[in-house]
Amino acid sequence: MHRFETRVYYEDTDMGGIVYYANYLKFIERARSEAIEAQGIDQWAMKEAGLFFAVRSLKAEFISPARYGDALIVSTYVTELKGASTTLRQSIQSDERKIFEASVTLACIRSSGAPTRFPAETRASLEKLLHHP
Amino acid sequence: MHRFETRVYYEDTDMGGIVYYANYLKFIERARSEAIEAQGIDQWAMKEAGLFFAVRSLKAEFISPARYGDALIVSTYVTELKGASTTLRQSIQSDERKIFEASVTLACIRSSGAPTRFPAETRASLEKLLHHP
Amino acid sequence: MHRFETRVYYEDTDMGGIVYYANYLKFIERARSEAIEAQGIDQWAMKEAGLFFAVRSLKAEFISPARYGDALIVSTYVTELKGASTTLRQSIQSDERKIFEASVTLACIRSSGAPTRFPAETRASLEKLLHHP
Amino acid sequence: MHRFETRVYYEDTDMGGIVYYANYLKFIERARSEAIEAQGIDQWAMKEAGLFFAVRSLKAEFISPARYGDALIVSTYVTELKGASTTLRQSIQSDERKIFEASVTLACIRSSGAPTRFPAETRASLEKLLHHP
Repeated sequence: MHRFETRVYYEDTDMGGIVYYANYLKFIERARSEAIEAQGIDQWAMKEAGLFFAVRSLKAEFISPARYGDALIVSTYVTELKGASTTLRQSIQSDERKIFEASVTLACIRSSGAPTRFPAETRASLEKLLHHP
Repeated sequence: MHRFETRVYYEDTDMGGIVYYANYLKFIERARSEAIEAQGIDQWAMKEAGLFFAVRSLKAEFISPARYGDALIVSTYVTELKGASTTLRQSIQSDERKIFEASVTLACIRSSGAPTRFPAETRASLEKLLHHP
Repeated sequence: MHRFETRVYYEDTDMGGIVYYANYLKFIERARSEAIEAQGIDQWAMKEAGLFFAVRSLKAEFISPARYGDALIVSTYVTELKGASTTLRQSIQSDERKIFEASVTLACIRSSGAPTRFPAETRASLEKLLHHP
Repeated sequence: MHRFETRVYYEDTDMGGIVYYANYLKFIERARSEAIEAQGIDQWAMKEAGLFFAVRSLKAEFISPARYGDALIVSTYVTELKGASTTLRQSIQSDERKIFEASVTLACIRSSGAPTRFPAETRASLEKLLHHP
């Protein structure tokens, strides 16, 4: 499991006084980027090689709103790893409060959009994020 | 069913050359705002009255990427209407191409975050968006 | 002068109840895209040819805040046109109220970031946006 | 002078492969929030008291593009402090490379939008950010 810290700024809030709902997806994407790079995957090198992670599907629960100034912890682990796609479980909490939970399925694609198998090192890196309870 | 048109601008894209995944949630939120206001609900008046729509859960499929300049059509209808929450089905297409589909569950909340029943007119307006196939 | 209409949605607001200051730059960028495409410039074709407009400098006045639901009109015209850069004047108003004004200087660059002269048609198109008072 | 570190994520980039121009305003706003809170100003408490910082004007130079993964350092100091407004100088660099520079003038306003003098502690805190070269 990977653990990433981020914080709520003005840009993240909306006129409801809380974080705008789409912005939780930014927080978990930051965490995914850090998580996979912590395992040695270089997304910039992948882009140069014409490979991208594309989000295929998402299930999300918005449990309790985050507010300006909240310190957030995003937890990320891999729940499923197939040849050309992977599913991650990501949750956000602030102090002991659960904010947000999501399952995100990512595919490996070429610039053309065509799905392709993960390169061996990418696969090896994702394996390190597999949750063994 | 409500139909809303929007367009992909530079701000919506990312270095993958396509729309950043969180931004589809902005597109469908614009459509929700237009859809419920087209039924006579004034979100600004709701805010003044201390009431908000809060997204509770979301299931989304990212089917085909939208790109800079794409004209998008967002379709919105209500699939379920309860006392204090409602579920909408929203899909995005560009020309004949399906881009994105989501089910979004919204709750009616007070500024405190506490759930509350929809006011009668809000409920009546949401009923008009119910899909009768 | 080019005139573009857009609208303030939830995504644009912040916890101050008004449009978040960086988002006015999105509104004027939408207008620039529409303005230059209305003159026949295809930014997507430019990107394919490895050419981009890059913002070099910006002077902005935030005159009166826009709020959720406001209908905005963005006016755009070219005030200066050089070989490899151009300056535009852009203003936003809502009804008769002035919201925002900016001068934006754009350079024509290659993917490498190196400045380059505008292609002849791009230049001709920008000339059509020159303000002749 | 206050120094703040942040990082470029996917959300910040556009199809040009670099940071979208409006997003530099997010980076410097994060830095302003951290800078003024480091001096003891609580923006949340200010909001509760009906006071906000509103950006009045901005001059910005986009010097060199930031890219995905870049570690950014934002430097912030106060160049002018008046009764109801203040001007800050903010610059972004990555390693030794200058990315962005801006002067930002902020006013203290009420929820109504009316300008008002800084509370004494806010003023004292801003004074600590005054640059004495």
